[in-house]
Amino acid sequence: MTDRVYRIAVIPGDGIGKEVVPEGLRVLQAAGERYGFELRCDHFDFASCDYYEQHGKMMPDDWKDQIAGHDAIFFGAVGWPEKVPDHISLWGSLIQFRREFDQYVGMRPVRLMPGVASPLANRKPGDIDFVVVRENTEGEYSSIGGRIFPGTERETVVQESVMTRIGVDRILRFAFELAATRGGHLTSATKSNGISVTMPYWDERVEAMAANFPDVRWDKYHIDILTAHFVLNPDRFDVVVGSNLFGDILSDLGPACTGTIGIAPSGNINPERRFPSLFEPVHGTAPDIAGQNIANPIGQIWAGSMMLDHLGEAEAAAGILSAIEASLLRPETRTRDLGGSADTTTCGEAVAAAVLDHA
Amino acid sequence: MTDRVYRIAVIPGDGIGKEVVPEGLRVLQAAGERYGFELRCDHFDFASCDYYEQHGKMMPDDWKDQIAGHDAIFFGAVGWPEKVPDHISLWGSLIQFRREFDQYVGMRPVRLMPGVASPLANRKPGDIDFVVVRENTEGEYSSIGGRIFPGTERETVVQESVMTRIGVDRILRFAFELAATRGGHLTSATKSNGISVTMPYWDERVEAMAANFPDVRWDKYHIDILTAHFVLNPDRFDVVVGSNLFGDILSDLGPACTGTIGIAPSGNINPERRFPSLFEPVHGTAPDIAGQNIANPIGQIWAGSMMLDHLGEAEAAAGILSAIEASLLRPETRTRDLGGSADTTTCGEAVAAAVLDHA
Ligand SMILES: CC(C)[C@H](C(=O)O)[C@@H](O)C(=O)O
Ligand SMILES: CC(C)[C@H](C(=O)O)[C@@H](O)C(=O)O
Repeated sequence: MTDRVYRIAVIPGDGIGKEVVPEGLRVLQAAGERYGFELRCDHFDFASCDYYEQHGKMMPDDWKDQIAGHDAIFFGAVGWPEKVPDHISLWGSLIQFRREFDQYVGMRPVRLMPGVASPLANRKPGDIDFVVVRENTEGEYSSIGGRIFPGTERETVVQESVMTRIGVDRILRFAFELAATRGGHLTSATKSNGISVTMPYWDERVEAMAANFPDVRWDKYHIDILTAHFVLNPDRFDVVVGSNLFGDILSDLGPACTGTIGIAPSGNINPERRFPSLFEPVHGTAPDIAGQNIANPIGQIWAGSMMLDHLGEAEAAAGILSAIEASLLRPETRTRDLGGSADTTTCGEAVAAAVLDHA
Repeated sequence: MTDRVYRIAVIPGDGIGKEVVPEGLRVLQAAGERYGFELRCDHFDFASCDYYEQHGKMMPDDWKDQIAGHDAIFFGAVGWPEKVPDHISLWGSLIQFRREFDQYVGMRPVRLMPGVASPLANRKPGDIDFVVVRENTEGEYSSIGGRIFPGTERETVVQESVMTRIGVDRILRFAFELAATRGGHLTSATKSNGISVTMPYWDERVEAMAANFPDVRWDKYHIDILTAHFVLNPDRFDVVVGSNLFGDILSDLGPACTGTIGIAPSGNINPERRFPSLFEPVHGTAPDIAGQNIANPIGQIWAGSMMLDHLGEAEAAAGILSAIEASLLRPETRTRDLGGSADTTTCGEAVAAAVLDHA
């Protein structure tokens, strides 16, 4: 019997979320066996559009109580535009988690993996390896705003972007600290030449925070040219920090440069551990391929590895990552989107087996 | 003597702007000779950081009167952060032009040219050929907002994003019309799942506008996954329309996918011709290489081609484009950033000669 027991809230959500989460769990259970810890999982059917159709809301009123006692949330994907508009389904679930559980760090590794072809010419595994750190609670994703003169020529819509000293400083501190433990290099995404109120403020705080980290080299790029550098010079980056919107963009673009967003994971982290952190794949619910058992579960599995890392099981986290790499190298354990022949289940089973085998 | 006489306001700005504008003009003059029109150029030293240092402002108070009578503005690049912060230099010049001359269309071709290596694997000239149409006056680039509780823990910064029915509809109409004359396909950049007030409105107007263009196929992508598709599936696009910020990002990322933003042009257009339109390269002032006569003038020259197109000189515009292509194919007329041996002047001379030679 182990005393390393973790309580996990499992939320598959919609679409392929329901197919990849079981594979993620399969691998996590294997890791538990192999590395000697136990995951106690509670499954929740809310935070899904099916739930919305039945209850007229995305989550029950006491969702916070139901989830708060867990050590982490293992999340699939949410959204099914044909049933519920995205801004309702997402704001009623994922974005609420991020905000009400104060998961203010969005962390997304960008790594070119073996067996995955980069769309970029002449890049091989090892060439691209950085982390996007995203402010995950405020900024451009404010819900403040509205519409005036609807239906007329004067119709005008306004939305506020809000940055707070507390919100900006804590994400910058996290990013600088992370850079200090990695390559010692931080890049800030800005757009202070165009977004003339919030972004100059962001720059100001970056400069102030940098003074606390004399050993971290830092630079900043406007978001437009930064996206260009992701394509032209992805080897230039170590830790890239951005606002909610910029982090969102960069953490899809980065994985695309490493071949596919289908395998990329995402942590929504409350570093102080006052609330459970949430781990999910970057990909969405993929209505077009849902229900066919062909979705690639690697993003979900990798999210599981990040979750274990967060829970203090660093060795198991690394074990899963090696198992992912091994499975990506063999066509018969890669899914079809990566030119392999595996279906969702076969792929998950292969990674789980590799975790158990791992010396 | 020709009666096709155009009055051009020439504004080189800062840095390499001052080096590439003369090459752009050289090519334009050659095109005038070859195709039988005349450009009368007035040169302005304002809208530059040097001007700011002398006068404490980016432009004289009567700048509008000085420029308004021209048929178009041929613009280099502005900004020199060591002298003037970007948000001051840009908002005091380029962004004022766009706004006060109601240049509400930002038009940026994205085309993989011969002789330029794409950073994307296995893409050749012809594979990538689309246009980014950017809303150029409102949206995220509002100047409304401010800071409260400065210097304290409660410090908060707010900036509004503003979309008007008039502003959104006119850019969408322009984009749909352009799509109708091109491949009949329009892609809208959105983020309605996250930016929950303005972006659902944008989507709504796209849907309404699409009803007027039954022959244009259209789709929409959230900006995060759209940037991924630029890298993974750039052949998918024909006309891509986006808000001010999204258009800004996509029109740097697009050219990066075609090898370099160093050769990309940009039109800031008032389609009704109530005010002069402005043509500029996408690149900036490049302080690191300014003054060395090594900057690539192709972006400026291509901007000249777009300007002629706008002025009704379609044949001359096409002639310049062919001359650009010819010069890009030869290492001795390509600049060093593209692996050639030409300096700025040599490159400009070569394109001008090719325009004159063009059968
Ligand atoms: C310089 C800057 C203000 C400008 C913009 O963001 O519009 C530039 O990036 C552009 O794309 O023309
Ligand atoms: C689904 C959407 C609201 C979400 C976001 O924009 O944050 C997603 O793109 C992500 O990156 O997690």
